[in-house]
Amino acid sequence: MRTDRAEDMEISLASVETPAAVLDVHRVRANAARAAAYLKEHGLTWRPHVKTHKSRRVTSLQLEAGAVGVTVATLREAEVMSTVCDDILLAYPPVGEAKLRRLLSLSSRVRLTVALDDPGVLRELGRAAALRERRVGVLVEVDAGMRRVGVQGIPAAVSMARLAANTPGVEYRGVLHYPGHIRDTGGPEGERALGELGRTVEELLDRLGSAGLTPEVVSGGSTPTLWRSHELGGLTEVRSGTVIFNDRDTRSLGAAAPEGLAFSVLATVVSTAVPGRAVIDAGSKALAREPLRGPGEGLGELLDRPEVTVVSMSEEHGILDLSESDWRPQVGDRVQVVPNHVCVCVNLQDRFLAVEGERVEAWEIEARGRGPFSGEPLV
Amino acid sequence: MRTDRAEDMEISLASVETPAAVLDVHRVRANAARAAAYLKEHGLTWRPHVKTHKSRRVTSLQLEAGAVGVTVATLREAEVMSTVCDDILLAYPPVGEAKLRRLLSLSSRVRLTVALDDPGVLRELGRAAALRERRVGVLVEVDAGMRRVGVQGIPAAVSMARLAANTPGVEYRGVLHYPGHIRDTGGPEGERALGELGRTVEELLDRLGSAGLTPEVVSGGSTPTLWRSHELGGLTEVRSGTVIFNDRDTRSLGAAAPEGLAFSVLATVVSTAVPGRAVIDAGSKALAREPLRGPGEGLGELLDRPEVTVVSMSEEHGILDLSESDWRPQVGDRVQVVPNHVCVCVNLQDRFLAVEGERVEAWEIEARGRGPFSGEPLV
Repeated sequence: MRTDRAEDMEISLASVETPAAVLDVHRVRANAARAAAYLKEHGLTWRPHVKTHKSRRVTSLQLEAGAVGVTVATLREAEVMSTVCDDILLAYPPVGEAKLRRLLSLSSRVRLTVALDDPGVLRELGRAAALRERRVGVLVEVDAGMRRVGVQGIPAAVSMARLAANTPGVEYRGVLHYPGHIRDTGGPEGERALGELGRTVEELLDRLGSAGLTPEVVSGGSTPTLWRSHELGGLTEVRSGTVIFNDRDTRSLGAAAPEGLAFSVLATVVSTAVPGRAVIDAGSKALAREPLRGPGEGLGELLDRPEVTVVSMSEEHGILDLSESDWRPQVGDRVQVVPNHVCVCVNLQDRFLAVEGERVEAWEIEARGRGPFSGEPLV
Repeated sequence: MRTDRAEDMEISLASVETPAAVLDVHRVRANAARAAAYLKEHGLTWRPHVKTHKSRRVTSLQLEAGAVGVTVATLREAEVMSTVCDDILLAYPPVGEAKLRRLLSLSSRVRLTVALDDPGVLRELGRAAALRERRVGVLVEVDAGMRRVGVQGIPAAVSMARLAANTPGVEYRGVLHYPGHIRDTGGPEGERALGELGRTVEELLDRLGSAGLTPEVVSGGSTPTLWRSHELGGLTEVRSGTVIFNDRDTRSLGAAAPEGLAFSVLATVVSTAVPGRAVIDAGSKALAREPLRGPGEGLGELLDRPEVTVVSMSEEHGILDLSESDWRPQVGDRVQVVPNHVCVCVNLQDRFLAVEGERVEAWEIEARGRGPFSGEPLV
């Protein structure tokens, strides 16, 4: 299958300049279908976080696969996705007048929900929404053990839910948590933490029910815990974002198989001067310097030679360690690198080269950056 | 002093959306003046690496301060800077047809030099330059001990210089090294490495001289070693880039004073739910997750409260540790964060807010990204 568009016809992976972000669209579709099917089987909805891809094409693909809406962290993500999706959760407190103004200027077609943990932010949101006569739902963010954000403890969570229910201008819709502290769901520590999380959520739901604050939405989920979501009693929706592409991290944690790796950075060998190493033109400004949370070392690995890892990087240099491989690349050879953390890596790319069979398309990453989105339609 | 431009009049640090990159222009000018004066005193020229700022306004400021030209790593940096600077060193091998084409399409007004370490890259560059009848100088990159790129050992460096001198299409201009392995110039290991580097360079120059290959240019320099450049006999130019802004890294290594910190990320406190911490809206997608090379911990610190550090980060969250401070911020408070590594942090920003007295201007970061630069003039 070939595209007719001239700009796409010109893209060839063999000659395109590197570094370049490459999507295996077949794998992207398979990842979306697998997540959607698992969640559907367990009566859960999928509201993927778009921070992973920041791209309308990928959001549309997720919605087609069965996602009920999207999760965003920034106002630009919200603005961009509001052109293709009419149900948006802002899982980030909109602090300050400028952010409130952008939030409440989103198309009235969009069903809007905001997660927050602070009474002042709640009050300001209610005040601004009432002024604009805009319906805004609220989820109370509770700390599920990560100690990053979120109301601390069940009594405080119930109080905050009551405050949300009683605040003019907003609608209390439920609770949200992010189990970012649970990585290794296969190990004993992960099992203990998952069990604890399940008990905490159940107790929270009991107490909210007793207080007449039964949540319509209980939003949770990360990609490492995705496939255990059905064991966390009471969840209604799962926000897992990384699963759409996966990365070295989710693979090393056992949350993705090697054939789930749908994203890589195409790079070129630019120096073989130092014995035992090869240098590629993708460093911290193309791959991002992110730690691996699961077993293993290094800052990335080759898609088709995972024994070759990126051992160190400068801004525009990635250093490949050849010590575990017989492969001896030449200057000019091309490789595909799987980054440790795909979400941060995508944020460094100009666009995706979306490869499906013989067809290569440029997919924009419209939600990169911070500024207002001008709202042009998706062609 | 105020600007007349409408878009600049509207910027106020108190109300601008965060995260936002802020330049203290007075400090930027002082950093440029100090580097230029030191190098001039020692008969060295300054060819700053623009990877730190990727901005034409900052390049122009460096040229006004006395820089003789600029150093770039990417073709986009070269294209952008060619509109304000006519002497460019590409300190990165241009591997592949696409990069060679962009390189040789730079304005003929630009005096062009390329650093490389590979005979094949040299041959292809010569072939392409001859076809275009374009003068291109070559510096042979030698490994000064970092073991990243560069010809290995003095005999191989002399051979490569001879090859460059004999390759049609290019002009042999000299040698280049990057002492990126030398960080702590105050400590015994740094002193040993500096001494070794000086001896290596002197021996290399002797051997090149004996071979009739006396280099016109000996290009070196990093910001941590900047103020010791005069001890490295034989250098003719210094490429230090980070010195223009400085960061937590150069300060911790003793290469910058606190008043040399010219760049920060303005951020807003978005959660104080977890005791002992405060969460800001700048995480790995605004600050970059980069290690501190000098003494100290954490991923960043507050400009006016360096005892408050960023202890961890998610993509859009920075976690401030308040344990060493009496300061207890409120949600909505604003802070300025000094990143560990400014070059990688700048690459994440949409623009600079350049503050000089009462005046706040938006300065573009035109050389971010990879694609061709359309060449619009600097207004």
